[in-house]
Amino acid sequence: MEKLKEKILTEGRVLPNNVLKVDSFLNHQLDPPFLMEIGQEFAKRFYAKNPNKILTVEASGIALALMTGYIMKIPVVFAKKRRGTIPDNFYHAKIFSYTRQENIFITVDRKYLTPNDRILIIDDFLATGEATRGLIEIVNTAGATLVGVGIAIEKSFQAGASFLSSLGVPTESLVKIKSLDRGKIEFL
Amino acid sequence: MEKLKEKILTEGRVLPNNVLKVDSFLNHQLDPPFLMEIGQEFAKRFYAKNPNKILTVEASGIALALMTGYIMKIPVVFAKKRRGTIPDNFYHAKIFSYTRQENIFITVDRKYLTPNDRILIIDDFLATGEATRGLIEIVNTAGATLVGVGIAIEKSFQAGASFLSSLGVPTESLVKIKSLDRGKIEFL
Repeated sequence: MEKLKEKILTEGRVLPNNVLKVDSFLNHQLDPPFLMEIGQEFAKRFYAKNPNKILTVEASGIALALMTGYIMKIPVVFAKKRRGTIPDNFYHAKIFSYTRQENIFITVDRKYLTPNDRILIIDDFLATGEATRGLIEIVNTAGATLVGVGIAIEKSFQAGASFLSSLGVPTESLVKIKSLDRGKIEFL
Repeated sequence: MEKLKEKILTEGRVLPNNVLKVDSFLNHQLDPPFLMEIGQEFAKRFYAKNPNKILTVEASGIALALMTGYIMKIPVVFAKKRRGTIPDNFYHAKIFSYTRQENIFITVDRKYLTPNDRILIIDDFLATGEATRGLIEIVNTAGATLVGVGIAIEKSFQAGASFLSSLGVPTESLVKIKSLDRGKIEFL
């Protein structure tokens, strides 16, 4: 998606440890019309997979998932992050949060994920793949069908991309980043 | 907003301690077309105040704020919740989280809030008013102008409503709940 590349080049900042900050339109400040364009792009790429529900994880995934759900006319469920005890009525998966440098749980109320569901996972970033792995684990535990994974920004040099590829899950990354070495953004 | 009242009556659940769960369309699962209608309603009520930016707090505020920002064609900033040290480049306010039963900070990067901004605060619930109070504190610290507060569901019997009223801030609550006593939802 050319426009996303341009936004990343003009507004993104590379921080140490291969962190790409896109706080001005995706992760802290949100650019609603642009996020709607991203939703349209995801919808176009996944209509044929016929999902009936979108799954994402709070907080940064919500905006993209919501816009995609709006275009596709299907509900969105966002997994919640928790520490400590998980109530019995929640599916859960343990993931390692690199931002927080600790293990956390992501959880989804069993009511909102059933074996009849055809799930499209949407998220802002694919890096180590921890969040996506956790979401897929929850989809599998629920006995739902995973029809695809839509990622806005894939850091192709980290483990998540090859993990998803090894699973054979249909994945669409709107932008793929080959390298952030020496603060320079290089697309694949 | 009649449709929101109906949704609350048909899908909401009252839990102990005056908690109203609207997980099926607002706080865990999201109903995108309905949230767009809420965004349209907020936009209608606040156009005349001429905001140039919307401020909310993660995670549940994001969906409503995004739809309102989409209709009004203005950016959205969501405050992030944190514990521990706050980086120098963030405005912050300490609030008590009733969900977590602890003090947390809500924070906004100074870059995204300036004295030229005319801020509309949007949030899903107004109960004790802690989150709203924190957001207003941040707006004031930044020297920005607060033009209004839009709330989807006001629990009028808790402290937040009278706190906002005492400040004289233009507040629009789409639904006002008078009481949740004995598990019964009574509107004002």
